[in-house]
Amino acid sequence: MAIAKHTHIALFGTSLIRKMFNEGARMKKEFGVENVFDFSLGNPNIPPPNEFTEAVIKIMKEDIPGKHAYMTNSGYAETRAFVADFLTKEQGITLEKENIIMTCGAGAALNLFFQAILNVGDNVVVSIPNFVVYKTYVENFGGVLKTVKCKDNFQLDLEAIEASINVQTAAVIINSPNNPSGVVYPASQIKALASLLRRKSRELDRQIYLVSDEPYRYIVYDGVEVPPILSAYENSVIISSYSKSLSIPGERIGWAAIHPKAEDANLIIQVMTMSTTGMGYTNAPALMQRAIVEVNGKTIDPEIYREKRDLFANSLRDLGYDFILPQGTFYLFIKAPGGDDMKFVEILQDEKILAVPGSGFNMPGYFRLSYCVENQVIRRAIPGFKKAIDKTLSKGE
Amino acid sequence: MAIAKHTHIALFGTSLIRKMFNEGARMKKEFGVENVFDFSLGNPNIPPPNEFTEAVIKIMKEDIPGKHAYMTNSGYAETRAFVADFLTKEQGITLEKENIIMTCGAGAALNLFFQAILNVGDNVVVSIPNFVVYKTYVENFGGVLKTVKCKDNFQLDLEAIEASINVQTAAVIINSPNNPSGVVYPASQIKALASLLRRKSRELDRQIYLVSDEPYRYIVYDGVEVPPILSAYENSVIISSYSKSLSIPGERIGWAAIHPKAEDANLIIQVMTMSTTGMGYTNAPALMQRAIVEVNGKTIDPEIYREKRDLFANSLRDLGYDFILPQGTFYLFIKAPGGDDMKFVEILQDEKILAVPGSGFNMPGYFRLSYCVENQVIRRAIPGFKKAIDKTLSKGE
Repeated sequence: MAIAKHTHIALFGTSLIRKMFNEGARMKKEFGVENVFDFSLGNPNIPPPNEFTEAVIKIMKEDIPGKHAYMTNSGYAETRAFVADFLTKEQGITLEKENIIMTCGAGAALNLFFQAILNVGDNVVVSIPNFVVYKTYVENFGGVLKTVKCKDNFQLDLEAIEASINVQTAAVIINSPNNPSGVVYPASQIKALASLLRRKSRELDRQIYLVSDEPYRYIVYDGVEVPPILSAYENSVIISSYSKSLSIPGERIGWAAIHPKAEDANLIIQVMTMSTTGMGYTNAPALMQRAIVEVNGKTIDPEIYREKRDLFANSLRDLGYDFILPQGTFYLFIKAPGGDDMKFVEILQDEKILAVPGSGFNMPGYFRLSYCVENQVIRRAIPGFKKAIDKTLSKGE
Repeated sequence: MAIAKHTHIALFGTSLIRKMFNEGARMKKEFGVENVFDFSLGNPNIPPPNEFTEAVIKIMKEDIPGKHAYMTNSGYAETRAFVADFLTKEQGITLEKENIIMTCGAGAALNLFFQAILNVGDNVVVSIPNFVVYKTYVENFGGVLKTVKCKDNFQLDLEAIEASINVQTAAVIINSPNNPSGVVYPASQIKALASLLRRKSRELDRQIYLVSDEPYRYIVYDGVEVPPILSAYENSVIISSYSKSLSIPGERIGWAAIHPKAEDANLIIQVMTMSTTGMGYTNAPALMQRAIVEVNGKTIDPEIYREKRDLFANSLRDLGYDFILPQGTFYLFIKAPGGDDMKFVEILQDEKILAVPGSGFNMPGYFRLSYCVENQVIRRAIPGFKKAIDKTLSKGE
């Protein structure tokens, strides 16, 4: 057996999301695509805005020397300047291109940031429910992910966060709009968190970074606003990608933006820039970097997802499912009838419905549905959802 | 100071290649682009074949559902099948799509492979001169890179390789056509290496992998053939990218292909596939995966580089520089006049010529010139090369 011992863990303990995705692929092969209702993966199904397609074609037709060549690992100056300007308008502080690094998606940016700041034994705090791969990103560099409970409405439990912070805490991650719960943390909560982090940083004599992972910022509904992070807390970094806002997750284009007054801000960007070589992917794809400048902040229309949310939410509520209506993202996070998420997800699977157990987000007792699918997939799945809840609740009586 | 201690090493001990690239950027700003002769980075300057540009435009215009969506982390089935078929014709053994994983460039593939096979303390053997980032790829997963001397003509020194292999040796890397020397290992040498690895694997009761990193396979001159690896040794993996053959290094598209009879072949591809999530970049860019199928094996014309090689080599030889004419790649690896490569590279820098010291490839006493530049840059740099060698040799007398 030549394979490394640690990789068995990687292989068999991997994300339940991907596991369901692969299970879905298998079932579609067996039963036919139209007979499987796959709500497992957050894989945007709506096409990118026309501006994106036109931008790529325009760039491909242009005569640009070294169009697809290596650039500085942190990305094209023009692209970083575009992101810096865009964030300056949004975040209420002034950013320069030197505060930005373009990356192969948000996941790569998180890895690079943790590589830059974590010493072995440092911890990173995150509120549940959380994207499970954060744990791997932190452990890759000898860190420990500490998950803390949230309020009943999935909002941050600041007391629980405070209790979990100690002298080895390097950072706190927030993810709003939240995957999987769909909640947005309001400005008052960000303000309170910032004040807590300032106080703990002073007490512990260690600057605690706030890492805001926000790929869903532009997928919000009903006029909800996602408050700026950088103007709320100096020692902060925003990490994002165009995967969701442009419907291009397969293209791997994202970035990290560090507050210019964050501790070691310049050094961190330098280290992240160097580390892209060691991690092997070197730079964010050149063509996508050029394209996002052309696209100039345009996004898909979140109303499309809002309609899907309403269709799905209304139908499920009628059947007796219990959940908080998401303010953003394209996920519903629902109480598992009967209480056992792993079991209920299996019952759904009998109806050829694929969902992700809340255990995959450190929150057993719930399950996640991704509604970036055709409306008719939602409609056609409803009878299965009815059977599943009826079966579970009658059994439970 | 919030930054992680280990990253200081990453920051200041990083590749001399990138250091020169950044130094070049600074000098170009100071003296003007046309006054700096940058031979530091292997950054293809010739445009991609028209077939590539047309393929991307065609794909962008087509109506493909989920065109830019996530796919299975290992890449599209069509793309992997294309690579498998292509290699089946080239390598003399039959590959299936299950033996292929598409990656964000060859560097990512090497990282993923080492993550899959290395246990802490394992070592990986490579012949000098070698691409310096191999060390980081191996150390990322607790391994140790052992560099061994080569023959005077840069060919493999099989005795040195044999002496360096022990029970903790997980793999041997070869890189042919070689960066930086430009030599190609002939079939006889691959055969002898395979036989050595088989014997050592038996003796040590451990299957030693042969990792063939070959992004320059299609940039060879004068009818030289790069022998197939997979038909020479079962326990082998080929890693490559389209960066050089299509002149698209900024787009990050490469792959790993494992011999179907290699130990744990399927498990390794599975682990690599899962690991892409943990490393954060998730999958090779979707559009590039689609494009390479359309491009169907077409490459840039190596004759363009052959002309540059001849122009550069003839001029430098006339000035008294000593080197072996490269059979492939776009590098010249030259004995440093005076013997001190760091010093000679500084002398070249006084002439606004950027080169990489051989120390950057674990081979002091040499320096590397990358000739993927306009012919006029080569011509205009020659007086500087004359001054540098004259100055060095007259000083030395």
